[in-house]
Amino acid sequence: VGVIGSTLVSLYGDDRLRADVLGALGRDGGFFATAVTERDAGSELDRLRTTAVPKGDVVVLTGEKLFSTNADSARHLLVVARHEAGADDQPHVAVVVPRDADGVAVSEPWRTNGLAGSPVHRVTLADCAVPAGNVLDGHGLRLLEVGLNASRVLIAATAVGMARRIRDLCLDFAGTRRLRGGVLGKHPLFADKMAQVEIEIETMRSQCRTAAADYEAVRTSPDAARRFARRGALKSALVAKVFCGQAGWRVASTGSEVFGGLGYTDEVPIGALMRDMRHVSLVEGGEDVLRDVVYRRFTAPPVRRA
Amino acid sequence: VGVIGSTLVSLYGDDRLRADVLGALGRDGGFFATAVTERDAGSELDRLRTTAVPKGDVVVLTGEKLFSTNADSARHLLVVARHEAGADDQPHVAVVVPRDADGVAVSEPWRTNGLAGSPVHRVTLADCAVPAGNVLDGHGLRLLEVGLNASRVLIAATAVGMARRIRDLCLDFAGTRRLRGGVLGKHPLFADKMAQVEIEIETMRSQCRTAAADYEAVRTSPDAARRFARRGALKSALVAKVFCGQAGWRVASTGSEVFGGLGYTDEVPIGALMRDMRHVSLVEGGEDVLRDVVYRRFTAPPVRRA
Amino acid sequence: VGVIGSTLVSLYGDDRLRADVLGALGRDGGFFATAVTERDAGSELDRLRTTAVPKGDVVVLTGEKLFSTNADSARHLLVVARHEAGADDQPHVAVVVPRDADGVAVSEPWRTNGLAGSPVHRVTLADCAVPAGNVLDGHGLRLLEVGLNASRVLIAATAVGMARRIRDLCLDFAGTRRLRGGVLGKHPLFADKMAQVEIEIETMRSQCRTAAADYEAVRTSPDAARRFARRGALKSALVAKVFCGQAGWRVASTGSEVFGGLGYTDEVPIGALMRDMRHVSLVEGGEDVLRDVVYRRFTAPPVRRA
Amino acid sequence: VGVIGSTLVSLYGDDRLRADVLGALGRDGGFFATAVTERDAGSELDRLRTTAVPKGDVVVLTGEKLFSTNADSARHLLVVARHEAGADDQPHVAVVVPRDADGVAVSEPWRTNGLAGSPVHRVTLADCAVPAGNVLDGHGLRLLEVGLNASRVLIAATAVGMARRIRDLCLDFAGTRRLRGGVLGKHPLFADKMAQVEIEIETMRSQCRTAAADYEAVRTSPDAARRFARRGALKSALVAKVFCGQAGWRVASTGSEVFGGLGYTDEVPIGALMRDMRHVSLVEGGEDVLRDVVYRRFTAPPVRRA
Repeated sequence: VGVIGSTLVSLYGDDRLRADVLGALGRDGGFFATAVTERDAGSELDRLRTTAVPKGDVVVLTGEKLFSTNADSARHLLVVARHEAGADDQPHVAVVVPRDADGVAVSEPWRTNGLAGSPVHRVTLADCAVPAGNVLDGHGLRLLEVGLNASRVLIAATAVGMARRIRDLCLDFAGTRRLRGGVLGKHPLFADKMAQVEIEIETMRSQCRTAAADYEAVRTSPDAARRFARRGALKSALVAKVFCGQAGWRVASTGSEVFGGLGYTDEVPIGALMRDMRHVSLVEGGEDVLRDVVYRRFTAPPVRRA
Repeated sequence: VGVIGSTLVSLYGDDRLRADVLGALGRDGGFFATAVTERDAGSELDRLRTTAVPKGDVVVLTGEKLFSTNADSARHLLVVARHEAGADDQPHVAVVVPRDADGVAVSEPWRTNGLAGSPVHRVTLADCAVPAGNVLDGHGLRLLEVGLNASRVLIAATAVGMARRIRDLCLDFAGTRRLRGGVLGKHPLFADKMAQVEIEIETMRSQCRTAAADYEAVRTSPDAARRFARRGALKSALVAKVFCGQAGWRVASTGSEVFGGLGYTDEVPIGALMRDMRHVSLVEGGEDVLRDVVYRRFTAPPVRRA
Repeated sequence: VGVIGSTLVSLYGDDRLRADVLGALGRDGGFFATAVTERDAGSELDRLRTTAVPKGDVVVLTGEKLFSTNADSARHLLVVARHEAGADDQPHVAVVVPRDADGVAVSEPWRTNGLAGSPVHRVTLADCAVPAGNVLDGHGLRLLEVGLNASRVLIAATAVGMARRIRDLCLDFAGTRRLRGGVLGKHPLFADKMAQVEIEIETMRSQCRTAAADYEAVRTSPDAARRFARRGALKSALVAKVFCGQAGWRVASTGSEVFGGLGYTDEVPIGALMRDMRHVSLVEGGEDVLRDVVYRRFTAPPVRRA
Repeated sequence: VGVIGSTLVSLYGDDRLRADVLGALGRDGGFFATAVTERDAGSELDRLRTTAVPKGDVVVLTGEKLFSTNADSARHLLVVARHEAGADDQPHVAVVVPRDADGVAVSEPWRTNGLAGSPVHRVTLADCAVPAGNVLDGHGLRLLEVGLNASRVLIAATAVGMARRIRDLCLDFAGTRRLRGGVLGKHPLFADKMAQVEIEIETMRSQCRTAAADYEAVRTSPDAARRFARRGALKSALVAKVFCGQAGWRVASTGSEVFGGLGYTDEVPIGALMRDMRHVSLVEGGEDVLRDVVYRRFTAPPVRRA
């Protein structure tokens, strides 16, 4: 999602970068892709192999990124790389790379199980030099965590939207589908399932709102950049992402049951919605990875428990 | 919970009743019990058989109520009864009955599976006469719905509290329990379970806060009594009750697993917490009953869908 | 699955039909498709509208069947239809229709979410006349139940096979995937998930074996045709179908988590396996429909409870 | 359960011990308790601290066992202890200890959450000397695994029995409980829940039968003792224990919902059944511990996968 790069530039970019990048996005539109994951560094980002080597007033990037959504049509890519000159406690950097910089190659899109409207690409960086001022101010992995806060809340919110779509499709179908001398929509078993779907949707929404409020409280504070960097991942955003992935999957499974064999065909979009919903749990940190963060940061330390 | 009666008196009682009942509660403390459920009218309250017969300036109540928490030590009971003089569209009334009124008999407490601190009694009303002014203004079942809004949010909140207690018990235990050359608290499997517990707790809290905010928005409005009566059960409160019962039960099951055989003894309170948690799903409307309300009021009508 | 038709012909066909149909299948191979479901008769087969009208020594079939797997390449179709001359207690017939009979039209295959190797078609029957001897002996819906016994056990068994495939894919992946200085395959969280998968597979297999043994006990009895007709759907076969659909779906969801973002691409077949697994729960009776049969036949009547 | 000790004596005791112990059980009845678990050795039995020191023709046992069911009224106890003279690869022994031997002290029973008919005790062994011939032939922990095979299948079978009891209680209740102008037993939502309960029961039974058949196949083979010792824990028995604990818990939760508030009282035994059912998952190896065994023995090694 394009929000990671633009958030980080606005918080941790210098004046020139903010003007260039955000000005262009504001004026001409366009997309800001993120290129982080590598084949051997998905759940463990400290294993990233892409390097950023300072050379005079440029930084040279080399490596291969496995997944980058909308990379091909993007205006810029946010790349996280190992910093060759980095201190021990700050070994990574986050760098803004123009899509059309020399050395940037974007593959054909992956064939994926869903989300047809969001092509995902491999990105190769071959001796790709960008101005030193394109390096954001701070620890690359920490900045990524900050950017992911907004992105995870947005992904969770898309799960809410898809769940509502599934509910409405089921209700429309049930309103005319004959069953036992009446319609499916009046049948107690259908009513019970749909009410449980409603309960999932309502709790998903409440958690998304909680996370959005937490995020806004930091973002609108006078020293947002410093506070975000100190806090990193917000607990409510992590929870929104994991919970909406789980609850959304339950909703999608119910929706699939409602349509039965017809839902296995392309006459109704429930199959596509199910595949799209699956993405929520898999992108930007799987459940295991995020639960590990939740435990270490917010559960194990007695002072952090809520 | 005592909140139902006091809420309803404050909203729908006349000046004398408010002064008498709420004044006494405020001055001397005490409990306001609720006596609604009957043996054949649990999930279907329109089957209530207890009657309220107007006779001059009193109303005479006759019937048997199956469950009334803290009835014996309460100062007043809120009783919902069939109104012999009621209009077709308002066949029930809610009446404030002093615990020490003639004709009120309270049984020995039920032996229950948990919640040792909250005795539940049968209440018999035998030609029990109370002033006509003790009848609250409005449809009895609708007023009950209004009172249950506050009560259900409170019950949901107790589930949050119990879930946090379970989490903390598990973490304390795991901090010293030896496992594989370390402690349980450092084991990935335990961490993963506890993070999921944390995720449940966070979402339970978010839903409780949503429901509490909805409730407060109505309660603090100028025409709270009328608005509550028009809306009846609040969707967010229904969802908080059902969801916290479900999520709390998952947390209790996890807690029970963590302690293993030791948790089956009285050396640790996890067994008692599990039994107390079960109550959340069973009291003041089981899941099926509340999902039926959710579906009919908030899911089936297209204009009410969120 | 082709087993329905061949089972029913062998049990309820006359000598000529058995020789013709089964002889051809044995000699030359080929597929025996089933064409039952209609747009308004999926979960309620007594709403079938396709008609079978006796005319002299033929029966004329007219109607449209919504789903028929492999219909285009099949040698014969088993069609269930309303019998215009049927008695009140036997209003349907099961009829063997040659694929190349006049009046049989098979549509382009549906575009489905999975099972690419098993095309599903619409079948139109327009004044399609077949010999009266192609009508099987017995109540059409009852015969269908008999045929579904074998078919449901086979479908359940395919779920076992897919679950084992998913397990093996996960284990192969985990054997080389680096994690925390070791491999994923040695991580306790992965081990725990895979053991749960193993538990699902083992219970799925046990239920399939139970159902297969029940089926064989009837099939190999001297009066198999009559006993099958009297018993209709076997409880263990219904349970195998529903349970393997549920357990298989849990396995597929776990498999999808293991592969994370990579599993959302076509580099690994987990996405395809998940879509194929979904079919198990949707085909030949959804969960609701089969649970309804289980309750009415085997749970509600005290004498049938096991 | 008494089956562990008697199984092991019959397989691994010498002629004198078999005659003494099994003869007495057969002639006079009585119970054979098991005393294994210690406070710091529950899930990791290699941490047992109870010692068995050979002294001439006796073995002296010293230690404290945390849980021993029916120990007080038992005739013998099977004790697993660290063998002071044990080889590196066989550091534990299993020893038959008469209940009335000097040095055996049995505590008051634990107060437990359920299973009122099966008192569980602490057992202290203080310089308790028993004949050297009371030591069974083989590795103590391996023999325990062998004994647990029978015991785990029996525990799983009790879960089936309790689940059937819960189902029957629900159906009896539903047969007279009024709902919506009919009875609960005719309501589609109740039917759907009970059918799912039936599906759980049927799969539990199938897995128990599979495990029992596996066990019998070894037990009735000519070299049962050697084959059992080589195989240790049987996969199907591990799976029966874990699965029946999980499925039984789902059944108990459903049963609790059916009875609602009434089920929270002692008017119906569903609360007691739920507490008893919990025990299935906690005794003789929690889910985590057994899944760890399943993974290491039967899932990770490619040659063992089924």
